[in-house]
Amino acid sequence: MLSNQQRKYVKSLQLKKFRTQYGTFLVEGKKLIEELRMSDFEIEQIYSTENLQQINSVVSISEAEMKSISALSTPSPFLAVVKQKKNLVYQEKNNLTLVLDQIKDPGNLGTIIRTADWFGISQIICSHNCVDVYNPKVVQATMGSIFRVSVFYDELEEFFKKNKQIPVFAADLDGKNVLKTPIFQKKSFMLMGSESFGITKNLHQFITQKITIPSYGSAESLNVSVATGILCSIYRQQFT
Amino acid sequence: MLSNQQRKYVKSLQLKKFRTQYGTFLVEGKKLIEELRMSDFEIEQIYSTENLQQINSVVSISEAEMKSISALSTPSPFLAVVKQKKNLVYQEKNNLTLVLDQIKDPGNLGTIIRTADWFGISQIICSHNCVDVYNPKVVQATMGSIFRVSVFYDELEEFFKKNKQIPVFAADLDGKNVLKTPIFQKKSFMLMGSESFGITKNLHQFITQKITIPSYGSAESLNVSVATGILCSIYRQQFT
Repeated sequence: MLSNQQRKYVKSLQLKKFRTQYGTFLVEGKKLIEELRMSDFEIEQIYSTENLQQINSVVSISEAEMKSISALSTPSPFLAVVKQKKNLVYQEKNNLTLVLDQIKDPGNLGTIIRTADWFGISQIICSHNCVDVYNPKVVQATMGSIFRVSVFYDELEEFFKKNKQIPVFAADLDGKNVLKTPIFQKKSFMLMGSESFGITKNLHQFITQKITIPSYGSAESLNVSVATGILCSIYRQQFT
Repeated sequence: MLSNQQRKYVKSLQLKKFRTQYGTFLVEGKKLIEELRMSDFEIEQIYSTENLQQINSVVSISEAEMKSISALSTPSPFLAVVKQKKNLVYQEKNNLTLVLDQIKDPGNLGTIIRTADWFGISQIICSHNCVDVYNPKVVQATMGSIFRVSVFYDELEEFFKKNKQIPVFAADLDGKNVLKTPIFQKKSFMLMGSESFGITKNLHQFITQKITIPSYGSAESLNVSVATGILCSIYRQQFT
Protein backbone atom coordinates (compact mmCIF):
# COMPACT_ATOMS: atom_id res chain seq x y z
CA MET A 1 0.00 0.00 0.00
CA LEU A 2 1.17 3.47 -0.90
CA SER A 3 0.37 6.31 1.50
CA ASN A 4 -0.63 9.69 0.12
CA GLN A 5 2.54 11.13 1.53
CA GLN A 6 4.69 8.51 -0.25
CA ARG A 7 2.87 9.09 -3.53
CA LYS A 8 3.37 12.84 -3.29
CA TYR A 9 7.03 12.47 -2.34
CA VAL A 10 7.93 9.99 -5.10
CA LYS A 11 6.07 11.95 -7.77
CA SER A 12 7.81 15.15 -6.71
CA LEU A 13 11.18 13.57 -7.56
CA GLN A 14 10.38 13.94 -11.24
CA LEU A 15 11.26 17.62 -10.72
CA LYS A 16 14.80 18.87 -10.13
CA LYS A 17 13.66 21.28 -7.42
CA PHE A 18 12.44 18.46 -5.19
CA ARG A 19 15.31 16.11 -6.06
CA THR A 20 17.68 18.82 -4.85
CA GLN A 21 15.58 19.52 -1.78
CA TYR A 22 15.39 15.87 -0.70
CA GLY A 23 18.77 14.75 -2.11
CA THR A 24 17.22 11.68 -3.71
CA PHE A 25 16.24 10.48 -7.19
CA LEU A 26 14.26 7.79 -9.01
CA VAL A 27 15.48 4.58 -10.60
CA GLU A 28 12.99 2.48 -12.54
CA GLY A 29 13.10 -0.92 -14.18
CA LYS A 30 14.37 -4.34 -13.19
CA LYS A 31 17.72 -4.13 -14.95
CA LEU A 32 18.59 -0.70 -13.59
CA ILE A 33 17.65 -1.71 -10.07
CA GLU A 34 19.79 -4.85 -10.34
CA GLU A 35 22.74 -2.65 -11.31
CA LEU A 36 21.85 -0.23 -8.53
CA ARG A 37 21.95 -3.00 -5.93
CA MET A 38 25.45 -3.96 -7.07
CA SER A 39 26.61 -0.34 -6.68
CA ASP A 40 27.57 1.75 -3.66
CA PHE A 41 24.53 4.01 -4.03
CA GLU A 42 22.28 4.00 -0.98
CA ILE A 43 18.70 2.86 -1.57
CA GLU A 44 16.06 4.67 0.46
CA GLN A 45 13.10 2.57 -0.65
CA ILE A 46 12.03 0.16 -3.35
CA TYR A 47 8.42 -0.01 -4.55
CA SER A 48 7.32 -3.10 -6.43
CA THR A 49 4.15 -4.57 -7.88
CA GLU A 50 5.70 -8.01 -7.30
CA ASN A 51 5.68 -9.65 -3.91
CA LEU A 52 9.26 -9.37 -2.72
CA GLN A 53 8.98 -9.31 1.01
CA GLN A 54 12.20 -11.26 1.34
CA ILE A 55 14.10 -8.16 0.22
CA ASN A 56 14.60 -5.37 2.75
CA SER A 57 13.10 -1.99 2.11
CA VAL A 58 10.58 -3.21 -0.50
CA VAL A 59 7.05 -1.80 -0.34
CA SER A 60 4.50 -3.85 -2.29
CA ILE A 61 2.09 -1.70 -4.27
CA SER A 62 -0.58 -2.25 -6.91
CA GLU A 63 -0.12 -1.64 -10.63
CA ALA A 64 -2.43 1.37 -10.42
CA GLU A 65 -0.30 2.79 -7.61
CA MET A 66 2.86 2.20 -9.65
CA LYS A 67 1.28 4.01 -12.58
CA SER A 68 0.55 6.97 -10.33
CA ILE A 69 4.21 7.42 -9.30
CA SER A 70 6.18 6.25 -12.34
CA ALA A 71 7.91 8.63 -14.74
CA LEU A 72 7.68 6.02 -17.50
CA SER A 73 4.85 5.79 -20.00
CA THR A 74 4.97 2.02 -19.53
CA PRO A 75 5.87 1.53 -15.85
CA SER A 76 8.04 -1.40 -14.83
CA PRO A 77 7.33 -3.54 -11.73
CA PHE A 78 10.17 -1.84 -9.84
CA LEU A 79 10.86 1.72 -8.76
CA ALA A 80 13.56 2.78 -6.31
CA VAL A 81 14.15 6.01 -4.44
CA VAL A 82 17.92 6.45 -4.14
CA LYS A 83 20.19 8.89 -2.33
CA GLN A 84 22.17 11.26 -4.53
CA LYS A 85 25.96 11.23 -4.24
CA LYS A 86 27.17 14.43 -2.66
CA ASN A 87 30.53 16.17 -2.47
CA LEU A 88 32.09 14.25 -5.32
CA VAL A 89 35.44 15.78 -6.29
CA TYR A 90 37.44 15.34 -9.50
CA GLN A 91 40.43 13.09 -8.96
CA GLU A 92 43.38 13.46 -11.27
CA LYS A 93 43.89 10.17 -13.10
CA ASN A 94 46.11 9.04 -15.95
CA ASN A 95 43.10 8.74 -18.21
CA LEU A 96 40.66 10.68 -20.34
CA THR A 97 38.03 12.77 -18.53
CA LEU A 98 34.99 14.24 -20.29
CA VAL A 99 33.99 17.86 -19.72
CA LEU A 100 30.49 18.77 -20.92
CA ASP A 101 29.37 22.34 -21.63
CA GLN A 102 25.62 23.02 -22.02
CA ILE A 103 24.44 19.49 -22.76
CA LYS A 104 20.74 20.05 -22.18
CA ASP A 105 19.13 16.99 -23.74
CA PRO A 106 18.58 14.19 -21.17
CA GLY A 107 18.94 11.42 -23.75
CA ASN A 108 22.28 12.82 -24.88
CA LEU A 109 23.70 13.10 -21.35
CA GLY A 110 22.52 9.60 -20.48
CA THR A 111 24.01 8.16 -23.66
CA ILE A 112 27.31 9.97 -23.03
CA ILE A 113 27.50 8.44 -19.52
CA ARG A 114 26.82 4.98 -20.96
CA THR A 115 29.47 5.54 -23.66
CA ALA A 116 32.03 6.75 -21.07
CA ASP A 117 31.38 3.58 -19.06
CA TRP A 118 31.96 1.44 -22.16
CA PHE A 119 35.31 3.10 -22.81
CA GLY A 120 36.50 2.98 -19.21
CA ILE A 121 36.18 6.71 -18.57
CA SER A 122 35.24 7.11 -14.94
CA GLN A 123 34.70 10.86 -14.52
CA ILE A 124 32.54 13.47 -16.26
CA ILE A 125 32.48 17.17 -15.34
CA CYS A 126 29.33 19.06 -16.34
CA SER A 127 28.75 22.81 -16.52
CA HIS A 128 25.91 24.00 -14.31
CA ASN A 129 23.70 24.55 -17.34
CA CYS A 130 23.86 20.90 -18.39
CA VAL A 131 20.72 18.86 -17.65
CA ASP A 132 20.56 17.32 -14.16
CA VAL A 133 22.17 13.87 -14.10
CA TYR A 134 19.41 12.66 -11.75
CA ASN A 135 16.65 13.58 -14.25
CA PRO A 136 14.68 10.30 -14.78
CA LYS A 137 15.27 10.43 -18.55
CA VAL A 138 19.03 10.73 -18.03
CA VAL A 139 19.04 7.86 -15.52
CA GLN A 140 17.08 5.69 -17.97
CA ALA A 141 19.35 6.47 -20.92
CA THR A 142 22.50 5.53 -18.96
CA MET A 143 21.24 1.92 -18.82
CA GLY A 144 22.88 1.56 -15.41
CA SER A 145 26.17 3.30 -16.16
CA ILE A 146 25.14 6.16 -13.85
CA PHE A 147 26.08 3.83 -10.96
CA ARG A 148 29.64 3.43 -12.22
CA VAL A 149 30.64 6.79 -13.73
CA SER A 150 31.14 9.80 -11.41
CA VAL A 151 29.35 12.87 -12.76
CA PHE A 152 29.87 16.21 -11.08
CA TYR A 153 28.88 19.78 -11.74
CA ASP A 154 31.30 22.68 -11.59
CA GLU A 155 31.89 26.17 -12.93
CA LEU A 156 34.06 25.13 -15.89
CA GLU A 157 36.23 28.27 -15.97
CA GLU A 158 37.19 27.67 -12.34
CA PHE A 159 37.62 23.97 -12.99
CA PHE A 160 40.09 24.49 -15.85
CA LYS A 161 42.00 27.11 -13.84
CA LYS A 162 42.45 24.60 -11.03
CA ASN A 163 43.63 21.87 -13.45
CA LYS A 164 45.89 23.83 -15.81
CA GLN A 165 48.46 21.06 -16.06
CA ILE A 166 46.09 18.79 -18.02
CA PRO A 167 45.65 19.43 -21.78
CA VAL A 168 42.15 20.25 -23.03
CA PHE A 169 41.03 18.79 -26.38
CA ALA A 170 37.87 20.45 -27.63
CA ALA A 171 35.53 19.20 -30.35
CA ASP A 172 35.14 21.98 -32.90
CA LEU A 173 34.20 22.27 -36.56
CA ASP A 174 37.58 23.75 -37.53
CA GLY A 175 40.04 21.70 -35.49
CA LYS A 176 42.67 19.13 -36.35
CA ASN A 177 41.44 15.96 -38.08
CA VAL A 178 41.39 13.26 -35.39
CA LEU A 179 40.87 10.41 -37.83
CA LYS A 180 44.32 10.83 -39.35
CA THR A 181 46.95 11.50 -36.66
CA PRO A 182 47.18 10.38 -33.01
CA ILE A 183 46.51 13.55 -31.10
CA PHE A 184 45.50 12.81 -27.52
CA GLN A 185 47.70 12.60 -24.48
CA LYS A 186 47.02 9.81 -22.02
CA LYS A 187 45.93 12.25 -19.34
CA SER A 188 43.53 14.57 -21.17
CA PHE A 189 40.30 16.48 -20.86
CA MET A 190 37.87 16.23 -23.75
CA LEU A 191 35.55 19.22 -23.87
CA MET A 192 32.24 18.79 -25.69
CA GLY A 193 29.96 21.77 -26.33
CA SER A 194 26.35 22.09 -27.34
CA GLU A 195 25.38 21.19 -30.93
CA SER A 196 23.61 24.52 -31.35
CA PHE A 197 25.95 26.91 -29.55
CA GLY A 198 29.35 25.24 -29.54
CA ILE A 199 31.69 25.86 -26.64
CA THR A 200 31.06 28.85 -24.37
CA LYS A 201 33.36 31.77 -25.26
CA ASN A 202 35.05 32.16 -21.88
CA LEU A 203 36.31 28.57 -22.11
CA HIS A 204 38.20 29.02 -25.38
CA GLN A 205 41.32 30.30 -23.56
CA PHE A 206 41.73 26.91 -21.88
CA ILE A 207 41.70 24.83 -25.06
CA THR A 208 45.04 23.18 -25.86
CA GLN A 209 43.95 21.73 -29.20
CA LYS A 210 40.75 21.93 -31.21
CA ILE A 211 39.86 18.62 -32.82
CA THR A 212 37.45 17.70 -35.60
CA ILE A 213 35.75 14.61 -36.91
CA PRO A 214 35.86 15.47 -40.61
CA SER A 215 32.67 15.47 -42.66
CA TYR A 216 32.28 13.56 -45.92
CA GLY A 217 28.72 14.65 -46.61
CA SER A 218 26.29 17.47 -46.03
CA ALA A 219 25.00 17.19 -42.44
CA GLU A 220 25.70 20.38 -40.50
CA SER A 221 26.83 18.58 -37.38
CA LEU A 222 26.94 15.25 -35.60
CA ASN A 223 24.78 14.44 -32.60
CA VAL A 224 26.89 15.24 -29.52
CA SER A 225 26.67 11.75 -28.03
CA VAL A 226 27.70 10.20 -31.36
CA ALA A 227 30.62 12.66 -31.60
CA THR A 228 31.66 11.83 -28.02
CA GLY A 229 31.56 8.11 -28.81
CA ILE A 230 33.74 8.57 -31.89
CA LEU A 231 36.31 10.65 -29.98
CA CYS A 232 36.44 8.12 -27.12
CA SER A 233 37.04 5.30 -29.60
CA ILE A 234 39.84 7.31 -31.24
CA TYR A 235 41.35 7.88 -27.78
CA ARG A 236 41.24 4.11 -27.21
CA GLN A 237 43.03 3.50 -30.50
CA GLN A 238 45.90 5.46 -29.00
CA PHE A 239 45.74 4.28 -25.40
CA THR A 240 44.28 0.89 -24.47
CA MET B 1 -7.40 29.57 -41.95
CA LEU B 2 -7.39 25.86 -41.46
CA SER B 3 -10.41 23.85 -42.60
CA ASN B 4 -11.63 20.96 -40.48
CA GLN B 5 -10.69 18.60 -43.24
CA GLN B 6 -7.13 19.96 -43.37
CA ARG B 7 -6.78 19.70 -39.59
CA LYS B 8 -7.97 16.12 -39.61
CA TYR B 9 -5.73 15.19 -42.52
CA VAL B 10 -2.55 16.78 -41.10
CA LYS B 11 -3.10 15.34 -37.63
CA SER B 12 -3.69 11.88 -39.07
CA LEU B 13 -0.14 11.94 -40.52
CA GLN B 14 1.26 11.43 -37.04
CA LEU B 15 0.20 7.80 -37.49
CA LYS B 16 1.94 5.39 -39.84
CA LYS B 17 -1.36 3.95 -41.06
CA PHE B 18 -2.43 7.28 -42.53
CA ARG B 19 1.03 8.23 -43.76
CA THR B 20 1.03 5.00 -45.76
CA GLN B 21 -2.54 5.53 -46.96
CA TYR B 22 -1.89 9.09 -48.18
CA GLY B 23 1.79 8.65 -49.12
CA THR B 24 2.74 11.85 -47.33
CA PHE B 25 4.50 12.90 -44.10
CA LEU B 26 5.11 15.90 -41.83
CA VAL B 27 8.15 18.17 -41.66
CA GLU B 28 8.25 20.79 -38.92
CA GLY B 29 10.59 23.64 -38.08
CA LYS B 30 12.23 26.41 -40.06
CA LYS B 31 15.60 24.73 -40.54
CA LEU B 32 14.13 21.42 -41.67
CA ILE B 33 11.81 23.15 -44.11
CA GLU B 34 14.71 25.17 -45.52
CA GLU B 35 16.57 21.92 -46.14
CA LEU B 36 13.41 20.39 -47.58
CA ARG B 37 13.06 23.21 -50.10
CA MET B 38 16.63 22.61 -51.31
CA SER B 39 15.86 18.90 -51.82
CA ASP B 40 14.02 17.02 -54.55
CA PHE B 41 11.17 16.06 -52.21
CA GLU B 42 7.78 17.30 -53.41
CA ILE B 43 5.96 19.63 -51.03
CA GLU B 44 2.19 19.24 -50.94
CA GLN B 45 1.46 22.14 -48.60
CA ILE B 46 3.18 24.43 -46.10
CA TYR B 47 1.30 25.80 -43.10
CA SER B 48 2.76 28.82 -41.32
CA THR B 49 1.83 31.20 -38.54
CA GLU B 50 3.92 33.83 -40.32
CA ASN B 51 2.59 35.77 -43.26
CA LEU B 52 4.42 34.29 -46.24
CA GLN B 53 2.04 34.79 -49.11
CA GLN B 54 4.94 35.38 -51.48
CA ILE B 55 5.77 31.69 -51.24
CA ASN B 56 3.65 29.26 -53.21
CA SER B 57 1.64 26.67 -51.38
CA VAL B 58 1.75 28.42 -48.01
CA VAL B 59 -1.44 28.50 -45.96
CA SER B 60 -1.40 31.12 -43.16
CA ILE B 61 -2.82 29.79 -39.91
CA SER B 62 -3.05 30.99 -36.31
CA GLU B 63 -0.80 29.78 -33.50
CA ALA B 64 -3.75 27.94 -31.95
CA GLU B 65 -4.36 26.18 -35.27
CA MET B 66 -0.67 25.27 -35.50
CA LYS B 67 -0.81 23.83 -32.02
CA SER B 68 -3.77 21.68 -33.02
CA ILE B 69 -1.87 20.01 -35.91
CA SER B 70 1.75 19.96 -34.72
CA ALA B 71 3.47 16.80 -33.44
CA LEU B 72 5.91 18.95 -31.41
CA SER B 73 5.35 19.91 -27.79
CA THR B 74 6.61 23.39 -28.73
CA PRO B 75 5.33 23.95 -32.28
CA SER B 76 7.45 25.95 -34.72
CA PRO B 77 5.95 28.54 -37.09
CA PHE B 78 6.30 26.14 -40.03
CA LEU B 79 4.82 22.76 -40.87
CA ALA B 80 4.97 21.08 -44.26
CA VAL B 81 3.11 18.12 -45.71
CA VAL B 82 5.50 16.33 -48.04
CA LYS B 83 5.18 13.46 -50.51
CA GLN B 84 6.98 10.26 -49.54
CA LYS B 85 9.55 8.87 -51.95
CA LYS B 86 8.31 5.68 -53.52
CA ASN B 87 9.98 2.84 -55.38
CA LEU B 88 13.48 3.64 -54.21
CA VAL B 89 15.88 0.86 -55.17
CA TYR B 90 19.34 0.10 -53.77
CA GLN B 91 22.04 1.09 -56.22
CA GLU B 92 25.37 -0.67 -56.00
CA LYS B 93 28.05 1.93 -55.23
CA ASN B 94 31.73 1.74 -54.34
CA ASN B 95 30.95 2.89 -50.79
CA LEU B 96 29.67 1.75 -47.42
CA THR B 97 25.93 1.07 -47.12
CA LEU B 98 24.18 0.65 -43.77
CA VAL B 99 21.75 -2.21 -43.20
CA LEU B 100 19.56 -1.87 -40.10
CA ASP B 101 17.79 -4.79 -38.44
CA GLN B 102 15.05 -4.05 -35.88
CA ILE B 103 15.96 -0.44 -35.06
CA LYS B 104 12.73 0.52 -33.34
CA ASP B 105 13.61 3.74 -31.53
CA PRO B 106 12.80 6.83 -33.66
CA GLY B 107 15.62 8.90 -32.12
CA ASN B 108 18.15 6.21 -32.95
CA LEU B 109 17.03 5.87 -36.58
CA GLY B 110 17.00 9.64 -37.04
CA THR B 111 20.47 9.99 -35.52
CA ILE B 112 21.80 7.15 -37.69
CA ILE B 113 20.51 8.91 -40.83
CA ARG B 114 22.17 12.17 -39.71
CA THR B 115 25.42 10.32 -38.99
CA ALA B 116 25.32 8.57 -42.38
CA ASP B 117 24.89 11.96 -44.04
CA TRP B 118 27.92 13.33 -42.14
CA PHE B 119 30.08 10.43 -43.31
CA GLY B 120 28.92 10.53 -46.93
CA ILE B 121 26.91 7.33 -46.79
CA SER B 122 23.99 7.78 -49.14
CA GLN B 123 21.95 4.61 -48.70
CA ILE B 124 20.38 2.81 -45.72
CA ILE B 125 18.40 -0.44 -45.97
CA CYS B 126 15.97 -1.11 -43.10
CA SER B 127 14.25 -4.34 -42.15
CA HIS B 128 10.46 -4.07 -42.16
CA ASN B 129 10.39 -4.11 -38.36
CA CYS B 130 12.49 -0.95 -38.07
CA VAL B 131 10.56 2.19 -37.12
CA ASP B 132 9.01 4.10 -40.06
CA VAL B 133 11.48 6.65 -41.46
CA TYR B 134 8.57 9.11 -41.94
CA ASN B 135 7.65 9.02 -38.23
CA PRO B 136 7.77 12.70 -37.08
CA LYS B 137 10.33 11.89 -34.36
CA VAL B 138 12.64 10.23 -36.89
CA VAL B 139 12.29 13.17 -39.29
CA GLN B 140 13.10 15.61 -36.45
CA ALA B 141 16.15 13.66 -35.26
CA THR B 142 17.65 13.56 -38.78
CA MET B 143 18.05 17.36 -38.63
CA GLY B 144 17.40 17.51 -42.38
CA SER B 145 19.57 14.57 -43.42
CA ILE B 146 16.42 12.64 -44.36
CA PHE B 147 16.32 14.76 -47.52
CA ARG B 148 19.79 13.61 -48.60
CA VAL B 149 20.09 9.97 -47.53
CA SER B 150 17.98 7.31 -49.30
CA VAL B 151 16.29 5.02 -46.80
CA PHE B 152 14.43 1.95 -48.02
CA TYR B 153 12.74 -1.03 -46.47
CA ASP B 154 13.31 -4.58 -47.61
CA GLU B 155 13.17 -8.16 -46.44
CA LEU B 156 16.85 -8.40 -45.41
CA GLU B 157 17.26 -12.12 -46.19
CA GLU B 158 16.10 -11.48 -49.75
CA PHE B 159 18.20 -8.33 -49.95
CA PHE B 160 21.43 -10.11 -48.99
CA LYS B 161 20.65 -12.98 -51.37
CA LYS B 162 20.33 -10.50 -54.23
CA ASN B 163 23.61 -8.77 -53.30
CA LYS B 164 25.83 -11.71 -52.45
CA GLN B 165 28.91 -10.18 -54.08
CA ILE B 166 29.20 -7.45 -51.41
CA PRO B 167 30.80 -8.34 -48.02
CA VAL B 168 28.67 -7.93 -44.90
CA PHE B 169 30.33 -6.58 -41.74
CA ALA B 170 28.12 -7.06 -38.70
CA ALA B 171 28.47 -5.37 -35.31
CA ASP B 172 28.60 -8.08 -32.68
CA LEU B 173 29.92 -8.46 -29.16
CA ASP B 174 32.36 -11.22 -30.14
CA GLY B 175 33.75 -10.02 -33.42
CA LYS B 176 37.11 -8.77 -34.59
CA ASN B 177 38.41 -5.62 -32.88
CA VAL B 178 37.86 -2.78 -35.37
CA LEU B 179 39.97 -0.28 -33.45
CA LYS B 180 43.18 -2.18 -34.16
CA THR B 181 43.29 -3.44 -37.75
CA PRO B 182 41.79 -2.07 -40.97
CA ILE B 183 38.99 -4.46 -41.74
CA PHE B 184 36.49 -2.95 -44.14
CA GLN B 185 36.42 -3.21 -47.89
CA LYS B 186 35.58 -0.09 -49.85
CA LYS B 187 32.31 -1.55 -51.08
CA SER B 188 30.74 -3.00 -47.93
CA PHE B 189 27.52 -3.49 -46.08
CA MET B 190 27.51 -2.70 -42.36
CA LEU B 191 24.75 -4.57 -40.57
CA MET B 192 23.56 -3.16 -37.24
CA GLY B 193 21.14 -5.09 -35.05
CA SER B 194 18.99 -4.15 -32.11
CA GLU B 195 20.68 -3.41 -28.77
CA SER B 196 18.38 -5.84 -27.00
CA PHE B 197 18.14 -8.68 -29.48
CA GLY B 198 21.23 -8.44 -31.66
CA ILE B 199 21.03 -9.54 -35.27
CA THR B 200 18.14 -11.75 -36.38
CA LYS B 201 19.21 -15.41 -36.62
CA ASN B 202 18.32 -16.00 -40.24
CA LEU B 203 20.74 -13.21 -41.26
CA HIS B 204 23.82 -14.75 -39.65
CA GLN B 205 24.54 -16.89 -42.73
CA PHE B 206 25.17 -13.71 -44.77
CA ILE B 207 27.77 -12.20 -42.44
CA THR B 208 31.28 -12.07 -43.92
CA GLN B 209 32.96 -10.73 -40.78
CA LYS B 210 31.71 -9.97 -37.28
CA ILE B 211 33.25 -6.79 -35.89
CA THR B 212 33.44 -5.38 -32.36
CA ILE B 213 34.14 -2.06 -30.72
CA PRO B 214 36.03 -3.37 -27.66
CA SER B 215 34.87 -2.42 -24.19
CA TYR B 216 37.20 -0.93 -21.56
CA GLY B 217 34.60 -0.66 -18.83
CA SER B 218 31.41 -2.25 -17.55
CA ALA B 219 28.56 -1.04 -19.75
CA GLU B 220 26.72 -3.98 -21.32
CA SER B 221 26.43 -2.37 -24.71
CA LEU B 222 26.75 0.86 -26.66
CA ASN B 223 23.76 2.79 -27.93
CA VAL B 224 23.22 1.65 -31.54
CA SER B 225 23.53 5.14 -33.03
CA VAL B 226 26.79 5.73 -31.15
CA ALA B 227 28.10 2.34 -32.31
CA THR B 228 27.12 3.16 -35.91
CA GLY B 229 28.92 6.51 -35.67
CA ILE B 230 32.09 4.87 -34.39
CA LEU B 231 32.05 2.22 -37.13
CA CYS B 232 31.46 4.85 -39.84
CA SER B 233 34.42 6.89 -38.54
CA ILE B 234 36.61 3.78 -38.58
CA TYR B 235 35.51 3.12 -42.17
CA ARG B 236 36.53 6.69 -43.04
CA GLN B 237 39.95 6.16 -41.49
CA GLN B 238 40.43 3.45 -44.12
CA PHE B 239 38.69 5.07 -47.08
CA THR B 240 38.37 8.84 -47.48
